[in-house]
Amino acid sequence: MPSLPLLVVLLGLLAHAAATSSPLNLLPQPTHSSIGNTTTCLDPGFSISFSAHAPADLRAAATRATRAIRASKMRYLSPTYGAEFFPATGGCTHWVKSLTVAVSDAAPIAAHATRKAEARVEGYNLTLPTDGEAQIAADTALGAFRGLTSFQNLWYRHNNDIYAPFAPYSIADSPQFPWRSLLLDTSRNFFDPATLRDMLDAMARVKLSVFHWHLTDSQSWPLRLNAMPELADKGAYEPSKVYSEADVRQITAYANARGIDVVLEIDTPGHTASLWYSHPELIACHAASPWGDYANEPPAGQLRFADPNVTAWTAQLFTNVIPLTSSAYFGTGGDELNVNCMMSDAATNATLAAKNITLQEALAQFTQGTHKTLLEHKRSPMVWEEMVLDHGDLGLSNDTVVDVWISSANTSAVADKGYKLVHASSDYFYLDCGRGEWINQDGGANSWCDPFKNWQLMYSFDPYNNITDAQRALVLGGQASLWAEQADASNYETVLWPRAAALAELFWTGSANTGNASFPRSALDALPRMHDARFRLLDAGVASTPLAPEWCALRPGACDLTS
Amino acid sequence: MPSLPLLVVLLGLLAHAAATSSPLNLLPQPTHSSIGNTTTCLDPGFSISFSAHAPADLRAAATRATRAIRASKMRYLSPTYGAEFFPATGGCTHWVKSLTVAVSDAAPIAAHATRKAEARVEGYNLTLPTDGEAQIAADTALGAFRGLTSFQNLWYRHNNDIYAPFAPYSIADSPQFPWRSLLLDTSRNFFDPATLRDMLDAMARVKLSVFHWHLTDSQSWPLRLNAMPELADKGAYEPSKVYSEADVRQITAYANARGIDVVLEIDTPGHTASLWYSHPELIACHAASPWGDYANEPPAGQLRFADPNVTAWTAQLFTNVIPLTSSAYFGTGGDELNVNCMMSDAATNATLAAKNITLQEALAQFTQGTHKTLLEHKRSPMVWEEMVLDHGDLGLSNDTVVDVWISSANTSAVADKGYKLVHASSDYFYLDCGRGEWINQDGGANSWCDPFKNWQLMYSFDPYNNITDAQRALVLGGQASLWAEQADASNYETVLWPRAAALAELFWTGSANTGNASFPRSALDALPRMHDARFRLLDAGVASTPLAPEWCALRPGACDLTS
Repeated sequence: MPSLPLLVVLLGLLAHAAATSSPLNLLPQPTHSSIGNTTTCLDPGFSISFSAHAPADLRAAATRATRAIRASKMRYLSPTYGAEFFPATGGCTHWVKSLTVAVSDAAPIAAHATRKAEARVEGYNLTLPTDGEAQIAADTALGAFRGLTSFQNLWYRHNNDIYAPFAPYSIADSPQFPWRSLLLDTSRNFFDPATLRDMLDAMARVKLSVFHWHLTDSQSWPLRLNAMPELADKGAYEPSKVYSEADVRQITAYANARGIDVVLEIDTPGHTASLWYSHPELIACHAASPWGDYANEPPAGQLRFADPNVTAWTAQLFTNVIPLTSSAYFGTGGDELNVNCMMSDAATNATLAAKNITLQEALAQFTQGTHKTLLEHKRSPMVWEEMVLDHGDLGLSNDTVVDVWISSANTSAVADKGYKLVHASSDYFYLDCGRGEWINQDGGANSWCDPFKNWQLMYSFDPYNNITDAQRALVLGGQASLWAEQADASNYETVLWPRAAALAELFWTGSANTGNASFPRSALDALPRMHDARFRLLDAGVASTPLAPEWCALRPGACDLTS
Repeated sequence: MPSLPLLVVLLGLLAHAAATSSPLNLLPQPTHSSIGNTTTCLDPGFSISFSAHAPADLRAAATRATRAIRASKMRYLSPTYGAEFFPATGGCTHWVKSLTVAVSDAAPIAAHATRKAEARVEGYNLTLPTDGEAQIAADTALGAFRGLTSFQNLWYRHNNDIYAPFAPYSIADSPQFPWRSLLLDTSRNFFDPATLRDMLDAMARVKLSVFHWHLTDSQSWPLRLNAMPELADKGAYEPSKVYSEADVRQITAYANARGIDVVLEIDTPGHTASLWYSHPELIACHAASPWGDYANEPPAGQLRFADPNVTAWTAQLFTNVIPLTSSAYFGTGGDELNVNCMMSDAATNATLAAKNITLQEALAQFTQGTHKTLLEHKRSPMVWEEMVLDHGDLGLSNDTVVDVWISSANTSAVADKGYKLVHASSDYFYLDCGRGEWINQDGGANSWCDPFKNWQLMYSFDPYNNITDAQRALVLGGQASLWAEQADASNYETVLWPRAAALAELFWTGSANTGNASFPRSALDALPRMHDARFRLLDAGVASTPLAPEWCALRPGACDLTS
């Protein structure tokens, strides 16, 4: 009679209704890879060595990766949880004893991660043999860090063994798009710095490269500036819900060392009602009622941007914020400007009359007056699509990055104007959609961007849809956005993960038309990688939502629509 | 110049766009209440005393409540987080020194919680004076426990003070419906016993009264029975994902002591593919492909219920499961029977031919044969609506409880047949809806019961809609269901809470037509209670989802649609 474990294996094989297309479950899928069929184990004395001038942040990343691999309990997802890779008796017979990381450039990860997007070099080669020495080779520390992340994601746990089941591995990999972004809104609800660091760690695991930090909005002003402390002292929810300058610098440094650029956004001239608490003179239509006539969300309130003093004040604000990060970009917002708010404001009307200009002309002056500060600090502006589509020519610089958010149908209009763009469309990439309208009303309502964007929908997006061949260089990448009306530290991980991993793979692998991936992408092919990524995040302590019953996670393909 | 705290208060008052309808944020809203305007504090020496024969589980509950009140950091939700209830200098001037709990009946909470639903007595009176002794009086320990829960939910924290801001309080309260239920599915994904205990604690905080435990299904069989160990040994995901008989008894005792009846469900004859691993001879169409022709979800597989041996085996199974709880009810399922699966099964066809009966007649024999076991154990059956609407007369006993789930439109059809019913309709109360279809397909899809059911929609439900006056006694209550295809311990709290609290209030307060509540219920009136409940759950360690920006939570009414 067969032993119980053997029976379990046999039952598992019988129940395995569909084969996976590739057993290499690295997410994002590498550009090129080959694998074998030998199980190799991590030698108990495993160590990592470096080429001479490897920077300190890369060495620190390797130390963290080694510790994480040793602590991980991640198991291979199959009906026997990876037991099939081991003989019935006995354990490992092949051992990886070391990893050598060779990098050509001595600059730290952080230096590369904060370059202009087009200049970032993230490629790497990785080999993992059946025995002996694994190798990572990369031109930059940023590329070596991406390789290290792949290395970390290859290992599984079986009892006391740490193993990789498909040695020898050979991987040559680089991303198609440099801007692989997550937006978090820290105004609607506050997220403490420790939570942000946890989020950045999770982002790094799937090679996301940009944290678009929507720092402030109408509901609260959590940024405490040394030169303008009153903004947070009066506009934050409470003193504990504030980021100091040191917090922002530390979070930025933490991100940069993990290959993530932090692009701060101070949304103006709308989305600024929280400045009213400290500077009521700056704000039009504050808390006007009914709010729906004056804003997209309560409370209403916008900068009196027609006033040159307000422009000067805002430029000074930007001057205080920009140096907090080392990014080449700075976000100035520009979405959802409410014209009725401005036209009902006596002070604004008086200014427009005195200067004999239109509201649109005033907006152009405000934009140029505040963006001048960005140029002085050598930052490229990042704005929302309305700034190039809705208000005529505002005199934006050519290097402005435009986030397309209202609809993916607007991509071509932005590209036609010659701006670089990021796909952040609400119809594909808004993670907060479809969870019910939070504005309170009897009987409830669906969210404005209903339905929920599940990972398969996100994954089906074509980065070059509605883009001419000549415009392709304008597409920097894509972004998943988590607006925090219904999210805070208690639940945000379940909203982000693993859906943001689908975006990470989409913009790492790019469009078929440029080379290495088939398009439309196959969710059937990607599913095992998505399950693997979800369970790896869970293993790392991230409350990542299960995609399916465990029965399905263990049997990729068995729960496809047509299986 | 005013001090900073005073400025904050003034700003808070100015920003408070709309007044709350009642500052008493107890959820569920009590039947009758009156409050004052004095802030009273919990005396450091506060203690609880009992009438002579108060049972041990009530005394233990009081100890837990006292500990929880002392540990809580829950603050009143206002722009100044409750500071408005204290003078600018100095602290408490009124003190509640003790609570006396008087109960007429000596039986424990657990005894009352597990009676037939109609026989449960949950009413209580609670007084909390400005100074001195608070009192709870109730006929039963179950009622006293509900009063104790209300008492616990009255307190807030301000610095080191624990206070209730609206003394004196006088509350007379009892529920309209006894069956206020939460369903959790522990087959699609496993939930360990500690997680279930946490869930039960959260349920008790909003006075939910039934845990409908959907124990087993086609994906896994986590119930390990002493007499039939092979079911879990072969059908559970793995040995660690199993409930022993002791686990079930302990979880049930834990629930009962918190005023919650545990109704176990062993879903039959469909939803049983996981029995195939241990008893392949019992199961028709196991893992048949394409699964969509044979089941509502993969994997396909149903009991060969036409076979008298299968009926006898299932009855024996029930006999082993029923004694694990002390409930007056036992769930036998009966949903989503797939006829094609049965008619494509050679063994079933042979049985039907040999017995010269139809599939429907076979189902009636199976139902009566297995339900006989319930009668022997004095349990009333709980079934899904198909068992009374889709398969003719199956000979169900008159005391069967029917869960209406496919649509709230089917309620009247069930009532017309004279069965007791529970509102569990997917169009109002399925918490898993609207999070995207989990069955994998390119481009994704919406969930079958899209959109997401937000709390305002749930709250707008009328328990007596489509019910005649004569049928009202048939309505036992309602149920929020969490099917766990996309939920496990990592995220389930964010899915359940605080939405399940809206159901708790709905079925506690009942329908206006019977007396004490206005209908349709006002989400505008309930919102501050929902926010309070959400933050109390968060304070208790439950990852309850925020309903809105904190700005809105602090200003009930300011974020209504028409504010």
